[in-house]
Amino acid sequence: MSRSTRYDTGRAPILVASTMTGARVSMEKIVNLAKRRGFVFPSAEIYGGFGGFWDWGPLGVLLKNNIKNEWWKTFVQQRDDVVGIDGSIITNPKVWEASGHIDNFFDKLVECKKCHRRYKIDVLKSGKWVTAEGEDLEDQSCKNCGANDWTEPKSFNTMFRTYIGPVEDTASKAFLRPETAQNIFANYELVRDTMRLKLPFGIAQIGKAFRNEITPGHFVFRSREFEQMEIEYFVVPGTDDKWFEKWVTACEQWFFSLGLNKKNLRLRKQSKEELAHYAKATTDIEYAFPIEKGWAELTGISNRQDFDLQQHGEFSRKDKSAFATAVDDEGKVKKVPFVIEPSFGVDRTALAFLLDAYEEQPDRLVLKLHPKLAPYTVAVFPLLANKPQLVEKARTVYKLLQRRFMTAWDDRGNVGKRYYSQDEIGTPWCVTVDFDTLEGAKRPKGTVTVRDRDSMVQEDIAIEELTDYLRAKLT
Amino acid sequence: MSRSTRYDTGRAPILVASTMTGARVSMEKIVNLAKRRGFVFPSAEIYGGFGGFWDWGPLGVLLKNNIKNEWWKTFVQQRDDVVGIDGSIITNPKVWEASGHIDNFFDKLVECKKCHRRYKIDVLKSGKWVTAEGEDLEDQSCKNCGANDWTEPKSFNTMFRTYIGPVEDTASKAFLRPETAQNIFANYELVRDTMRLKLPFGIAQIGKAFRNEITPGHFVFRSREFEQMEIEYFVVPGTDDKWFEKWVTACEQWFFSLGLNKKNLRLRKQSKEELAHYAKATTDIEYAFPIEKGWAELTGISNRQDFDLQQHGEFSRKDKSAFATAVDDEGKVKKVPFVIEPSFGVDRTALAFLLDAYEEQPDRLVLKLHPKLAPYTVAVFPLLANKPQLVEKARTVYKLLQRRFMTAWDDRGNVGKRYYSQDEIGTPWCVTVDFDTLEGAKRPKGTVTVRDRDSMVQEDIAIEELTDYLRAKLT
Repeated sequence: MSRSTRYDTGRAPILVASTMTGARVSMEKIVNLAKRRGFVFPSAEIYGGFGGFWDWGPLGVLLKNNIKNEWWKTFVQQRDDVVGIDGSIITNPKVWEASGHIDNFFDKLVECKKCHRRYKIDVLKSGKWVTAEGEDLEDQSCKNCGANDWTEPKSFNTMFRTYIGPVEDTASKAFLRPETAQNIFANYELVRDTMRLKLPFGIAQIGKAFRNEITPGHFVFRSREFEQMEIEYFVVPGTDDKWFEKWVTACEQWFFSLGLNKKNLRLRKQSKEELAHYAKATTDIEYAFPIEKGWAELTGISNRQDFDLQQHGEFSRKDKSAFATAVDDEGKVKKVPFVIEPSFGVDRTALAFLLDAYEEQPDRLVLKLHPKLAPYTVAVFPLLANKPQLVEKARTVYKLLQRRFMTAWDDRGNVGKRYYSQDEIGTPWCVTVDFDTLEGAKRPKGTVTVRDRDSMVQEDIAIEELTDYLRAKLT
Repeated sequence: MSRSTRYDTGRAPILVASTMTGARVSMEKIVNLAKRRGFVFPSAEIYGGFGGFWDWGPLGVLLKNNIKNEWWKTFVQQRDDVVGIDGSIITNPKVWEASGHIDNFFDKLVECKKCHRRYKIDVLKSGKWVTAEGEDLEDQSCKNCGANDWTEPKSFNTMFRTYIGPVEDTASKAFLRPETAQNIFANYELVRDTMRLKLPFGIAQIGKAFRNEITPGHFVFRSREFEQMEIEYFVVPGTDDKWFEKWVTACEQWFFSLGLNKKNLRLRKQSKEELAHYAKATTDIEYAFPIEKGWAELTGISNRQDFDLQQHGEFSRKDKSAFATAVDDEGKVKKVPFVIEPSFGVDRTALAFLLDAYEEQPDRLVLKLHPKLAPYTVAVFPLLANKPQLVEKARTVYKLLQRRFMTAWDDRGNVGKRYYSQDEIGTPWCVTVDFDTLEGAKRPKGTVTVRDRDSMVQEDIAIEELTDYLRAKLT
């Protein structure tokens, strides 16, 4: 679940006083770079876009794929205790009855009586209305027209609904999943049995989710269609606190291992007032986003206890203990497992990596993305585009590298311009084929120069060693 | 687009007389294996499933990921002329006005007046109604109750609709994309400009699509939620026939390169009567599926001409030539590019590979999946589970291989049982750590046995050579 839209529990969604640190780039600059270089476009921009929906361009899809691959490698492939699934976005609506989404997944809004602009609000325990920024609604005037005359708050369910089959009636109503987590709970038993898993074990999933946000915004930070990477990690009750801490650390480490700046990340334990009703504890990994509230959730780790499996037991078998498979030390008592949920947003993660990597230097703009995340691992240039022998040789090198790596080709302008262009999209290494490659003079024949994005230092490497050279750099 | 749901053009969707060859396995067997071993489950099976929706289990998601990775590597990474995007499932509805989906993407159904069972039908040019199997409706009695009394045919749009924002009105109506193709057309100009592409070039996309099928069925062959891998390849008009043929060959080769049996695949050119109104030519790559009609579409390659770009030019800029960027040999006339569309279904492709790989032998059931597609590349066993030194050493080997490959661990029962279990899910290689590994006797110390799934032959390999050994086998 996560993504800071919480169940309407009547509890106050406390907003964190922001203490921004080290955000060196405005969102606007990232939005512009993203559009100019093909990372992210407004969805169907030729029709004016579509609020809260984004299309990831050629470089964006490579960045996202790299993030998803690294996540999968870390949390599925290289672990002994986690398997994956890929559940459907539309599923049996009973799933959402059991999970509580049909009854409780509401947002509240008020409308300005004068200009009809709508705002998302929250209602505090005390009955006080506050804006999404935590300000008292009574004191607020409409940001659009300046009036201070609000309608009564109205609730509406944040799940997108649709209808299955040719007739649109209650019987055919279905929902787009607002989180990937519930596919996992619904498949708990089948996955455990077919894979012969024993507690503790986790089920991971990457996929799209949809929320009908009243006020999507901040670029891809909060959109109506987004992608999640979630793990539900099932443990014997009593060991849950220990596993919770382990997962907080594992998630934080994952960001660090991919180069995210430690000073832009912080852990924040949710207060009791904030916690979702099913949660025993939740820690948000927050990133210093360049948005008003500053620190904001990047990833959440939640101890959901046995809430979900009990609900699905109750709704599918009329037995809250239907999935009670946790055995205590004496091998007797069977309990419903507790679950620790690390929940990542792919889009938000990509945004954080882009923000973090952005660096304006006197002569260049450089995206210092981790080489494992950079859209292109390497670019290949012929020193001069009008010398057929250079071009031909460079093409050979390009085709060679393309077998293993996402490889860019550039033969426009001069080498300086090409470096500039590759720096801006974060390509860690640029390979130039020059006359020494063909003839040897200052360097041995058959070597190329490899220029490092960050140090800007060039090394001479033999063509037949290039693949191994880059592979070693990547690991 | 593709997937044999075509625009309602009043033309007959001619069904191919089936001449099944070599389908060695019934769908039922695959469905059972898929469920038993964790490839595919009915979506939310604990609630009785949900018609036309499926959840891919732990092995299924690995198979699908491998298929998508191989496709991306072949058609994006290793080509010079194709880039990817990842557009949103919900986008501006004007996209579907321009594409013709709002006006023309209809299915027709009749209902049995007695039992109310609904059937998908087609209306021929002659006005005759035929069932989805091509049979004359007049002669047909209801498969459910035997009556022959039908309602008038009713049309309904096959796109799932939903509503954006808190109010459900016409203004807020939006659709789940029924194909990934249109995201590509809508982004044509942005992608071309940001990536500085020149014709011919392609834009590829992998992602979910949704169709409100009246009669989903045949397991994952026709579901309501499915995943596509599509390329729109833009060419100078006049070169389109040549590129069409090249793409047919490239797609066919892709299946062969991953081991699909040539005799289970055939090309079928659609007749003029069948062609969608925008298509100049369409060739279906058909697979011999074990379903009534036998040969059925696995992949379609279509010459869509300039239809889509003209439509989007007209709807976004009131200018059919807005995207006219194809320059003729003399560099003068600008034309709207033609587009060749290879369209693959991920789920259908996975199904074809599963069917093709299934082999019952006297002593075992073996899934002869291509090693690049197999969920696990390798499995590691300690010869005996009750010898701690063997287990410990085997764990070291397991952790080593896990860094590079999806690796299974098995220490149940005896080695024969473990081979049986891995054969059934297609694991190409099984590594056993035995006493010779620890002490050396019949074999040098530090070696393991690697058993090949297909030949069942064992080789002795040194542990430190295992990674390179498997890597070499994979390429």
